[in-house]
Parts: sequence; C-alpha cells; structure tokens
Amino acid sequence: MTVKTRLFVDQPLAEGNRVSLTREQAHYLFGVMRMAVGGAVALFNGRDGEWHGDIVEAGKRGGVLECAAQMRPLHMPPDLWLCFAPIKKTRTDFIVEKATEMGAAKLCPVQTDFTNSERIKQERLQAHALEAAEQCGATYVPEVTALQKLGTLLDRWPTERQLMFCDEAELGAATSLARATRGPWAILIGPEGGFSPAERARLHALEQSHVVSLGPRILRADTAAVAALTLWQSALGDWTT
Amino acid sequence: MTVKTRLFVDQPLAEGNRVSLTREQAHYLFGVMRMAVGGAVALFNGRDGEWHGDIVEAGKRGGVLECAAQMRPLHMPPDLWLCFAPIKKTRTDFIVEKATEMGAAKLCPVQTDFTNSERIKQERLQAHALEAAEQCGATYVPEVTALQKLGTLLDRWPTERQLMFCDEAELGAATSLARATRGPWAILIGPEGGFSPAERARLHALEQSHVVSLGPRILRADTAAVAALTLWQSALGDWTT
Repeated sequence: MTVKTRLFVDQPLAEGNRVSLTREQAHYLFGVMRMAVGGAVALFNGRDGEWHGDIVEAGKRGGVLECAAQMRPLHMPPDLWLCFAPIKKTRTDFIVEKATEMGAAKLCPVQTDFTNSERIKQERLQAHALEAAEQCGATYVPEVTALQKLGTLLDRWPTERQLMFCDEAELGAATSLARATRGPWAILIGPEGGFSPAERARLHALEQSHVVSLGPRILRADTAAVAALTLWQSALGDWTT
Repeated sequence: MTVKTRLFVDQPLAEGNRVSLTREQAHYLFGVMRMAVGGAVALFNGRDGEWHGDIVEAGKRGGVLECAAQMRPLHMPPDLWLCFAPIKKTRTDFIVEKATEMGAAKLCPVQTDFTNSERIKQERLQAHALEAAEQCGATYVPEVTALQKLGTLLDRWPTERQLMFCDEAELGAATSLARATRGPWAILIGPEGGFSPAERARLHALEQSHVVSLGPRILRADTAAVAALTLWQSALGDWTT
C-alpha cells in the first residue's frame, strides 16, 4: 500500500509507538486532507527512518497515530554544510528547500561584508526545511544554524573540513572537484553582490579551500546554491551509484 | 563607468542608433529608477551584444536612447534545448528564469501523460525569460516555444540532437556524461509524477537518449531542471575554461 502523506513528528518511532499530533497536523490531516481513523500516513522524525502510521484517533484539535512498521531506514545525507548569505525572503526559503532536497546535512546562514540582512528567522527556516523534507521523501532534516559572521566561521574553521568556494570573479583560477577527496565538506555561496576583496583574499588563502567556477553567466544566489550542490553531489556525494 | 540598469529592446543596436522606449520602460527608467537625460543604461536585443545607451529624451510615456559603444559582444549559449513539463505557475516561471541564467538556447514546454496543465501562457513565459536575461547579464534571450505533446516532439526528433533524459526511476541504469560528445543537445525533465511507463519505454529506446540520474532523493521539477543544466554545462557546455 502506498502512503502518500508524509508527516514529521518529533517523537520516537518504533513498532507500536503512539504518536500524538499537533493541532496544525490534525487540521491538515482531518480537515484539509479529509483523512479519518483507519487511514495511514508516513511518519519520520529525522532519526528513525520512515514508518507506516495508522490513524487511531482523529479530532479537531489533535489525533493519535500508531507506528505499524518501518517502511524505509534512515538515509543520512553526506556530511556537507551549505553556508550561504541570506537574501530576500522567498529566495532564502528557496535555498533552504533546495538544499534539503539535494541532500545537505547542515544549513549555515552567514553574514558577509555585502549581506543585506542583519538577522534571519531561524525557526521559520527550520520549519521550511522540515516541510521540504516532508515533500521530497527525505528521512533526515538538515539543521538550520543561527546566523553567524563569515569571519567568525572562518576563525573556527575545522581543520578536516574542505571548503568549496564558488567565486564568480575567478573563472580562470577555478579547479575541478574531480581530484578532490571525500570526507567532511562545506559549500560557500556569496550574496548577490559577491564577496568583498578582503573576504576573497581570506578564502583563497584558506588551506581547505577549493575554488570552483559556476560558469560564465552571473547566477542568482539561489541558482548558485543548486548548481554548487549538484557539482558537489555528482563528484563527491551520494549521486554516484 | 559601470552601467547597472539593463534593458532589452527589440531594435537594431549599432553606433549612433536611436532606440525608442515603450511606455513601461519609460515608466521604469524615469519613474521607478528616477533616471533622466544624461543618464545611461545597458541595452541588448539578443543579437547585437550589449551597448552603452545614453538617455537623450525622457518623458512620461516614452523616451529615446542613443547607442554609444558596444560594451560586450553577443555571447551565445550552447545549442541546448530544455524540454520540460509545465508545473504550477511560480515553479514554471522559476524554470524559465533558471534556464536563462544557466544558458539554454531554447525552452520547450512539453505535455506528457502526467502533465497537469493543458496550456501555457507562452507570451508571459517569454517575457519572463527576457526579464531574467536583463537581470543576469545575458546578451541572449532563449526562445520559449509553444506547448507541444511529448509524442509529437519525439516523432520529429532531429537525428543529430542528443537527449539527456533524467529518469528518477533508473538510478542504477544511469550513464555518465563524461564520455558523451559535444554538439546539439536537449535536456528532458518530467512532471512531478514522472513519466508514464509508455513514455519511459519510448525514451529509453530512442537512439539519441542518455539516461542520467539526479541522485537518490526525489527532486521537484524545478530543482531537477537546475541540477540537469549544471551537469550538462559542466560536462559538455561552456562552464569549462
């Protein structure tokens, strides 16, 4: 039996476990989707894989599901961070959605010299990642970290983590990922105005940096994020069979 | 001098040529951007490259620009078609915008067995491609063709045009583009529900087909379009230096 509706629940999933729904989830399942006791949805919590959940109680303000069987094990994305400078609301939402679909493990908003926004709505972005995971069939939800300054991030850069730095200004100096090694990685995407000269100098000097080109046209930050994730996944991630 | 505002005009561009603005363009330049006689914008028409245009007349309902000098020659994208099944309005707009940025030559909406929409607003999509070209610095605007049935498109498939067919169901059978040859190409992206079994059989049988995988997660059609364009551009297009 194919179960199409997927729900994220922050509760342990195991055979026979009962899971209670939030008011919003109850409204969605019973009000919007017109489901009822006897129906089934797919449940995941980011840790225990995907479970078949039978609806055992359905109310206006809540409901209970019972875990029947695991349908799929947890599929972790590669150990990849996507570091990006937040842009306009809808395009930042888009980056979060796409990075979840493409398989990043952690989403790190960074404030750069040319970033416009001083703050982000971390909870809203996290909810957006969760919704994207519900829709794309992922069993894992990437964590959205708090906004941090690029300088601070680089000060504490982990020795073992390689960095794919997408520099629009450096088409000629770009290297290929074909000879890069697997392991912990991060992708860094700049804001619409690119990086400042000081930031570029620092990023080029960073031992873990790999400068990668995204072609001769100027890409919007959200396009650049998907393109960079594609290059990385196909060269070093889980897109190879 | 850097000229930031770019305008598409469907008129010949050459030294000394005068170009008249539409009412909307005049409103944008003089009303929204507060520009005036003596200011300058970048002009392109998809054929003659990018030109420095001086504002010589500015009115509420129109205006005139004079071409001073060519700033950049025409940069044609590779001979690549993006064939896609139209989806929800905003996501179809997104595909058109992204394909323009990524460098496709032609955008071909196709109706598949599982496509929801029976019609597209071809003119609106063309205007969207044009606006994307204005914003991403392209000197070329891809043509948006009329909606056609996938079957009809395949009936007349040009012998010399290779096809990158992104089949979610065939992760194991996927081939790499690394050994593919350059030349005329097309990318085909299916609708949210994928291709029908009959369509898949026909696409697999097509001599020009290369089956390509976009990873183990289910991608939305708009994400798949950007990912496929990235794989193609980096293997066979103009992303290599």
